[in-house]
Amino acid sequence: MSKLWETKDHKEKSEAVKKVEAFTVGNDYKLDQILLPYDIQASVVHANALKRAGMLKNKELEKLTSTLLEIKEIWEEGQFEILQEHEDMHTAIEVYLTEKLGDLGKKIHLGRSRNDQVLTAMRLYEKKQLSEISKLLQSLIKTLLEFGAKHEKIPLPGFTHTRKAMLSSVSLWAGGYAELLIMQLEMKAGVLGLIDRSPLGTAAGYGTTLPVDRKKEAVDLDFGQPMVCSTTAQLSRGWVETQLVQYLSSITSVLSRLASDIISYSSETHRFFTLDKMVCTGSSIMPQKQNPDVAELIRGKHAEQTGLQASLQSIGMNLGGGYHRDLQLTKEPVIRSFNITGQVLEMAKLLIESIEVNAEESEKACTQELFAAEAAYQIVKKEGLSFREAYKKVKENPNEIPEYSARDFLKAFSHLGSPGNTGLSILKAQLDRLGQGK
Amino acid sequence: MSKLWETKDHKEKSEAVKKVEAFTVGNDYKLDQILLPYDIQASVVHANALKRAGMLKNKELEKLTSTLLEIKEIWEEGQFEILQEHEDMHTAIEVYLTEKLGDLGKKIHLGRSRNDQVLTAMRLYEKKQLSEISKLLQSLIKTLLEFGAKHEKIPLPGFTHTRKAMLSSVSLWAGGYAELLIMQLEMKAGVLGLIDRSPLGTAAGYGTTLPVDRKKEAVDLDFGQPMVCSTTAQLSRGWVETQLVQYLSSITSVLSRLASDIISYSSETHRFFTLDKMVCTGSSIMPQKQNPDVAELIRGKHAEQTGLQASLQSIGMNLGGGYHRDLQLTKEPVIRSFNITGQVLEMAKLLIESIEVNAEESEKACTQELFAAEAAYQIVKKEGLSFREAYKKVKENPNEIPEYSARDFLKAFSHLGSPGNTGLSILKAQLDRLGQGK
Amino acid sequence: MSKLWETKDHKEKSEAVKKVEAFTVGNDYKLDQILLPYDIQASVVHANALKRAGMLKNKELEKLTSTLLEIKEIWEEGQFEILQEHEDMHTAIEVYLTEKLGDLGKKIHLGRSRNDQVLTAMRLYEKKQLSEISKLLQSLIKTLLEFGAKHEKIPLPGFTHTRKAMLSSVSLWAGGYAELLIMQLEMKAGVLGLIDRSPLGTAAGYGTTLPVDRKKEAVDLDFGQPMVCSTTAQLSRGWVETQLVQYLSSITSVLSRLASDIISYSSETHRFFTLDKMVCTGSSIMPQKQNPDVAELIRGKHAEQTGLQASLQSIGMNLGGGYHRDLQLTKEPVIRSFNITGQVLEMAKLLIESIEVNAEESEKACTQELFAAEAAYQIVKKEGLSFREAYKKVKENPNEIPEYSARDFLKAFSHLGSPGNTGLSILKAQLDRLGQGK
Amino acid sequence: MSKLWETKDHKEKSEAVKKVEAFTVGNDYKLDQILLPYDIQASVVHANALKRAGMLKNKELEKLTSTLLEIKEIWEEGQFEILQEHEDMHTAIEVYLTEKLGDLGKKIHLGRSRNDQVLTAMRLYEKKQLSEISKLLQSLIKTLLEFGAKHEKIPLPGFTHTRKAMLSSVSLWAGGYAELLIMQLEMKAGVLGLIDRSPLGTAAGYGTTLPVDRKKEAVDLDFGQPMVCSTTAQLSRGWVETQLVQYLSSITSVLSRLASDIISYSSETHRFFTLDKMVCTGSSIMPQKQNPDVAELIRGKHAEQTGLQASLQSIGMNLGGGYHRDLQLTKEPVIRSFNITGQVLEMAKLLIESIEVNAEESEKACTQELFAAEAAYQIVKKEGLSFREAYKKVKENPNEIPEYSARDFLKAFSHLGSPGNTGLSILKAQLDRLGQGK
Repeated sequence: MSKLWETKDHKEKSEAVKKVEAFTVGNDYKLDQILLPYDIQASVVHANALKRAGMLKNKELEKLTSTLLEIKEIWEEGQFEILQEHEDMHTAIEVYLTEKLGDLGKKIHLGRSRNDQVLTAMRLYEKKQLSEISKLLQSLIKTLLEFGAKHEKIPLPGFTHTRKAMLSSVSLWAGGYAELLIMQLEMKAGVLGLIDRSPLGTAAGYGTTLPVDRKKEAVDLDFGQPMVCSTTAQLSRGWVETQLVQYLSSITSVLSRLASDIISYSSETHRFFTLDKMVCTGSSIMPQKQNPDVAELIRGKHAEQTGLQASLQSIGMNLGGGYHRDLQLTKEPVIRSFNITGQVLEMAKLLIESIEVNAEESEKACTQELFAAEAAYQIVKKEGLSFREAYKKVKENPNEIPEYSARDFLKAFSHLGSPGNTGLSILKAQLDRLGQGK
Repeated sequence: MSKLWETKDHKEKSEAVKKVEAFTVGNDYKLDQILLPYDIQASVVHANALKRAGMLKNKELEKLTSTLLEIKEIWEEGQFEILQEHEDMHTAIEVYLTEKLGDLGKKIHLGRSRNDQVLTAMRLYEKKQLSEISKLLQSLIKTLLEFGAKHEKIPLPGFTHTRKAMLSSVSLWAGGYAELLIMQLEMKAGVLGLIDRSPLGTAAGYGTTLPVDRKKEAVDLDFGQPMVCSTTAQLSRGWVETQLVQYLSSITSVLSRLASDIISYSSETHRFFTLDKMVCTGSSIMPQKQNPDVAELIRGKHAEQTGLQASLQSIGMNLGGGYHRDLQLTKEPVIRSFNITGQVLEMAKLLIESIEVNAEESEKACTQELFAAEAAYQIVKKEGLSFREAYKKVKENPNEIPEYSARDFLKAFSHLGSPGNTGLSILKAQLDRLGQGK
Repeated sequence: MSKLWETKDHKEKSEAVKKVEAFTVGNDYKLDQILLPYDIQASVVHANALKRAGMLKNKELEKLTSTLLEIKEIWEEGQFEILQEHEDMHTAIEVYLTEKLGDLGKKIHLGRSRNDQVLTAMRLYEKKQLSEISKLLQSLIKTLLEFGAKHEKIPLPGFTHTRKAMLSSVSLWAGGYAELLIMQLEMKAGVLGLIDRSPLGTAAGYGTTLPVDRKKEAVDLDFGQPMVCSTTAQLSRGWVETQLVQYLSSITSVLSRLASDIISYSSETHRFFTLDKMVCTGSSIMPQKQNPDVAELIRGKHAEQTGLQASLQSIGMNLGGGYHRDLQLTKEPVIRSFNITGQVLEMAKLLIESIEVNAEESEKACTQELFAAEAAYQIVKKEGLSFREAYKKVKENPNEIPEYSARDFLKAFSHLGSPGNTGLSILKAQLDRLGQGK
Repeated sequence: MSKLWETKDHKEKSEAVKKVEAFTVGNDYKLDQILLPYDIQASVVHANALKRAGMLKNKELEKLTSTLLEIKEIWEEGQFEILQEHEDMHTAIEVYLTEKLGDLGKKIHLGRSRNDQVLTAMRLYEKKQLSEISKLLQSLIKTLLEFGAKHEKIPLPGFTHTRKAMLSSVSLWAGGYAELLIMQLEMKAGVLGLIDRSPLGTAAGYGTTLPVDRKKEAVDLDFGQPMVCSTTAQLSRGWVETQLVQYLSSITSVLSRLASDIISYSSETHRFFTLDKMVCTGSSIMPQKQNPDVAELIRGKHAEQTGLQASLQSIGMNLGGGYHRDLQLTKEPVIRSFNITGQVLEMAKLLIESIEVNAEESEKACTQELFAAEAAYQIVKKEGLSFREAYKKVKENPNEIPEYSARDFLKAFSHLGSPGNTGLSILKAQLDRLGQGK
């Protein structure tokens, strides 16, 4: 089967031609399996626009629409194939339409280009995925806050420079990660704004002379608004996706650091946490090992995200406006990034749920030196010295630091966000407010 | 002069010690020249908090405040020095206070750490800079929209794959870039949200037992709210900055592509634009050259931004929570990125203003092949063929494409965002709305 | 089937367990299809080492060896399956051995760990691939040199800043790219040196008490030498791979710029080159288009490489020594990078072969301004002015530049590497010398 | 003072012009302070070439040469200024020559362009710096090997997944890092090969009609050979530098992981190492802290290197051949990277020297579980079970692992690179061989 725009050239393919086709098609025919329902959705809206513009009759519209929906059903059953020779979903769909409807099938491509088609499908896909990520994110935050609340009064050494620094608490530990993720949840609106402009009708990037109503199309596709200028569409390709993946990567960045803490806190040197075997694996040579593989892979997967970002930023870099084929390669990193982010969010939730806190160990680890700053502060209060002077005094006599009970000491903290007053309920309220927003 | 927390060790510095100091201090003492007023601002607020907490008397507060403001005045006159031996602004300020006020000067450090101090100063700086960038961005968008409006009816070839594709217009060209920048202006609120949480009072990342009112401090510093958990502060360091620089880089990314177009359109092969000599430079060997150096450097400066992002993403990667000294190095990329972005925004505006459009050349370049799609479309309308069939017909007979006048043809476009109806007024309205928001 | 090291835990898998397994296994079971023959090769060598160490009898060795080779044959017929439940090739192989040989099959894992196994397989794979890339690279360089030689006397404008600068030639254009690739071919020895140290016998990174002869194993696997310290193996994982992918990316970087030139030179504004239709594709909306997609995708694929590098650099960043599960993720980027590089090298060769040079067009484009520097130089010679003075004179009177014939003018150049004496034969000699080295 | 190639335009500079100049000049006038002696060196060689080509008389050559050397002397005393208005060193030098020698001074620029000038200076600088780095690298490796040899018999837990895995030794720990650095030292030849081609005489990238002897110039500058094609020069700009910085970054990558280990091993949870106060700093709030800032900054500085690489890779990405002004920005990242690498190598050496090994602590940490694999291996030997079966047995009865003495146990290891036979003398021999190579 020939590509639709080919005239009768090079029918018998040489090795070289086959290699060229494999190169130009790339993974598109596979990736498009994911995007297909969005292309169908946009095609239905486009068919309606053609009808309104007088280019399709009522009957024709009906037939096209029902056949498009038929494709979607076949796809939902996992039966719609996009072959490498199709090159992409657009051709696969059109081939199906043409087989079923004859020349009518060919009418669907009037007034559009694969440039606006694929971009519309991508943005619809991205909106849907972003919403899914948002739910997983909320669920993880909830888990973190519950974890924090459950272990509210359990002391934990607070580290700086990987050394014991000051008294912290399990609750404060969990709350910090929750708050970062809430900040990121809040950012979602901004990112959504970038995606929420309809590219439909921009065709190859310069519009068409067809009198389509792009605002109506945007409404039909549930976009916030149409992209105003046709040129914006292709300029936005990759540029929006870069920002989207940066957004997703900022989520996994938090989880990477969370995972690092869990790896450390569950090691035999700390034992603050015990991880369920479910999230660990063994070693093929060392029988004693319970390795925190899930946590390590969360970290590793985040590292992969930085690669996806770098790809997206590099593709098309320094080139002028208008579509370049380079931009085709922006599809895969976005899809990979959504998959990674979703998976990592689920794994992080599981990881938190798999933690058993060893209160005794973490309390035992809250040794005297954590209270050195406090000892200096007490000198300030009692002896009226400046903090600097008191600090020197403690430094010179480290053994005179009083032996506080960490658990009792938590009560000495009063300000918002201190280990004894972690403010999780405020974070919970912020989360609820954001959750209602969607 | 010794660092304030040193006890009487290694007074006579070996070569090694000097090298270590140079290494650990790095550029901090220079970068802090930029951040100093923000540290002063936060110190005044902190002093007030100490007073409220009963740790400073009224008189003491007054003296500290007036001396801090004195430092700011000296700084404004460019006379306040931060020496390498000071290590950073915090020490330089404290040294000044102590020299002036004796032991009272040392009281300012009670209940805080350089960790929350520097972060508070950074975030205040970032808020201010983001607001400056926002203004420059608005000004550039305005320039682009005016440029587009001024050249509204001038045809321009629209390129895809660096080849002539369809008819476009100077207005549509400018509008695409303006719209992207408007989208980015809209994103600002999200990024601001990340910065707008006060870290003051989180001390080394685990709070203090001092009963400070962190909400009040946040209000006094004009932050939207305090960071809730103390642990959030150091987790956010670098993480927020990465997102900030990604945001700035998304701006310069647009300008990079704009610059590429300008370089191309002003080359001797196109001559659609003539650039004022002011934004060009000559060659030391070729007398004839007028090179578009400003445009090229805009592109190059954007490339630098990707490096700043990569730095920020890498610093602290895979590490657990709590402050690590690595994070000190997040300062410089942020400051560099703001400087680059500001400079590039100014240069881009100048560049647009320096363009003289050669309407004759651009119209002449709108040759027959730009209308091939239209020719197919006309066959659809006249002969009732599907677009696919019409397309083949045109492809096989390229010389039968009618010779349209590009300028007249612009009138054939009606839909929003097409070359004949570029919708700049809608963009203008969006800009105005965003402008009022600030 | 349970993983081999599992004792009788969690047999009935919950949804969560399945997700965890899918997460931890990742793509490994697919990627290992590529690596399997190398793991077999190393297993045979390891079995011999076990025999020498007295841990296997002659008969046992024979049986293990022949069954391993049996697996390889099955694999060569495309029939050896690695299932997700196997997790990786090591388990799949061991399962097969155990099914065939009973307890003997389990003996193969004595004295090794998957850590050194997978690394050995990777390095063997990398050596093989690097050698393949090297051949493709030589072939492309040859094509470039032949292309240059064929078009030796054809003038071409030389551009700087995307503007006409001085006279160049098609030969000089091709030679520049060939020389860069020769430089890269020369670099190969260094990169090979990094890969050419055998990790076999380092086990989990700390060796074993088994008296294996690691030097003999290295020789048997055709490695240049063993890694000396066992700890080096896991430290090198990802670190070597990063440098390898950087090396490959430096190749595609050259091809990216080559592709950009070809896109530009074959555009309708230049027409120096015409590309065969085979390496172009059409547009679905614009019948007239012949787009240089292959060249654009070469550029895009190189951009992807920067992402692979960034991934590799980020994985494990800032972590201490010893194996971390994060490192598992270093496999995929290497394999992807080899695939991309091989494909892009083939495409670049095809692209060069597909070029028809339009000597007339390129000569016509060699307009007067290319000779401005020469005009100044002539004034220097005739009037004895300094170059600076002569330069000013030409700049002020651009129309007095003599009208040279570009083709004739090529003869005026004599120095090595000038458009008239491009030195391709020297490059050819360098290529031949390097080719013989392998 | 006007730039030399300016005719009498825009003498009174507007604000805009000043901003444009500041933007285009950037940091060049500062960076060129570092590069100046290399530009002088190349200018002397160029003057000789002009003489040989009959463009300078003997006397003229003498005067030019001695004045150039005069500049170098002034520079060595730190007295040669390059002003922002000079734009770069080339102009500053020419201005000086012209002031001293009148019109003769202007003759130096005949037959060259700033394009080949700056590139020649850069490559000379890079060769020198690479050689310096090489020395520092050798010195650090020596320190590591000595450190390893000194602590040869001290047991250390070997970690995988940040958990205790198998027995290791301090010597094996140091040896792994040393070996990686030796591999990198070996790579140097390849990188040097990229730099070691003289760009002098390629002018703006297309040569000149001046009959210069480029081979002779290469010899005079101590380059291995000339770049053959003139076009290679500008294509190589940034491309070579990217590979150079990747090379440097691969060094700091090793040091980053080394630093992470040191941070961990010197923490209060391990105490295997004690760091000298000299490489630690205190906290401004916590009197007890001794923070491993030097080690952390080594890690952070490596993270910065990834940014420098990303910058270099991005600058000029996707652009065609020939000089673009973007490439000017490749200077700074290279210089920064050399500075960082040199500094970090020095700091790493100091860090190693500052380590006091606490043999008692590290031995005490070698607890029973480190011998689990060995216990299984003993069962294999004694009971004839397969390793897999023995492994299960140990896993089910972890308390039956014999209590080995770690120090004694080291003797059980015999193979190369195991904790008891670390092979440091082989590494020492490799280092010596490489050292003699230079």
